[in-house]
Amino acid sequence: MDKIRIIEVKESIFEDNNREAARLRARLKNERTFLLNLMSSPGSGKTTTLMRTIEELKHEFRIGVMEADIDSSVDAEKIATTGVKSIQLHTGGMCHLDAGMTEQGLNELGMENLDLVILENVGNLVCPAEFDTGAVKNAMILSVPEGHDKPLKYPLIFTVCDVLIINKIDVLPYFDFDLEKVKEYALMRNPNLKIFPISAKTGEGISAWTDWLRNQVGDWINAD
Amino acid sequence: MDKIRIIEVKESIFEDNNREAARLRARLKNERTFLLNLMSSPGSGKTTTLMRTIEELKHEFRIGVMEADIDSSVDAEKIATTGVKSIQLHTGGMCHLDAGMTEQGLNELGMENLDLVILENVGNLVCPAEFDTGAVKNAMILSVPEGHDKPLKYPLIFTVCDVLIINKIDVLPYFDFDLEKVKEYALMRNPNLKIFPISAKTGEGISAWTDWLRNQVGDWINAD
Repeated sequence: MDKIRIIEVKESIFEDNNREAARLRARLKNERTFLLNLMSSPGSGKTTTLMRTIEELKHEFRIGVMEADIDSSVDAEKIATTGVKSIQLHTGGMCHLDAGMTEQGLNELGMENLDLVILENVGNLVCPAEFDTGAVKNAMILSVPEGHDKPLKYPLIFTVCDVLIINKIDVLPYFDFDLEKVKEYALMRNPNLKIFPISAKTGEGISAWTDWLRNQVGDWINAD
Repeated sequence: MDKIRIIEVKESIFEDNNREAARLRARLKNERTFLLNLMSSPGSGKTTTLMRTIEELKHEFRIGVMEADIDSSVDAEKIATTGVKSIQLHTGGMCHLDAGMTEQGLNELGMENLDLVILENVGNLVCPAEFDTGAVKNAMILSVPEGHDKPLKYPLIFTVCDVLIINKIDVLPYFDFDLEKVKEYALMRNPNLKIFPISAKTGEGISAWTDWLRNQVGDWINAD
């Protein structure tokens, strides 16, 4: 296995992150590269979900992955085993990525020959939600053991996401987690949210999620 | 049930948080009040652990609880059912509490007649670890479903904590979680860390944790 490339990304100097994010999205459009920003708490199964997603889509799209972490390259090493292009971004203690940091990562990854780039954001339900990374779509994972009350407690992230993946449904019998309630609470925050219950461990529900993503990427990279 | 008091805490104006934290600790010493700062990811079982802890200790100590949240008062309502004095702190979107915000909360709670105050910090493994709240001791909860690699990925919080509570050991059979490995990784970050595996749901292991806390509180409030 090749050594993982680790990039230290620096907080960007731009005053207006929203403007930078819009500029980056325009650049992505121009390059015909779809950027997905994937957010969640630590331990919700981001990396395993990502590996399943890559397996489903890697024969259709040229995929790249940016693993953002405070420190460590545990995840990037796992992703590298799927054979897609991946780099590790270190935020130097920062709890989020802004658009400038995301673009530094994309420049290092090289997006010219990639159809789909997935950014695995820092594990955190608060700060990453506050910064537009420039991604085309935002997805979040909430896992069953975390509890169905999370849309009440972390409203912003449910508001800014296009997709809510509910992971670890294979352990539903062992937790007091009400799937209908979490859907109701999440849709209260964001009526347009697409919700996909999955088990990244068993593969259940993955194809509904990857069908959605396939369509989104196709629309983006094939648009006139 | 009384209505929950909700306090909006503002980011403090102090330049030097460490100095403010040391000043607050000295004030706590003077008042003979022990402040425990409890941190974790969202959904690790902080509130349930706290309720078990209160049940074990409420006949020995006068206990108060401050529930910090971005928004919502779900947790404070649960805590109020235990009969201890509790307030909800809203951080207005901020991902952590500093010493000044903690002191605003303590002033509202009123610490004169309390032996033990527990601050349930915002659910997050990153930002809360960066700010000394002025607490006498810091504890964190990591739950089994989050995975045993967390000390590798979120090093700082393991470094600043005195105690690591490993919660949800009742679901160990359903997860690939290596209890020995997480202990090894966590002690690598902090050789002095006390580690208590528990199930807040079944009560297993709770008494070892509350024995430790009872001794700490006793030492603090009875010292000359």
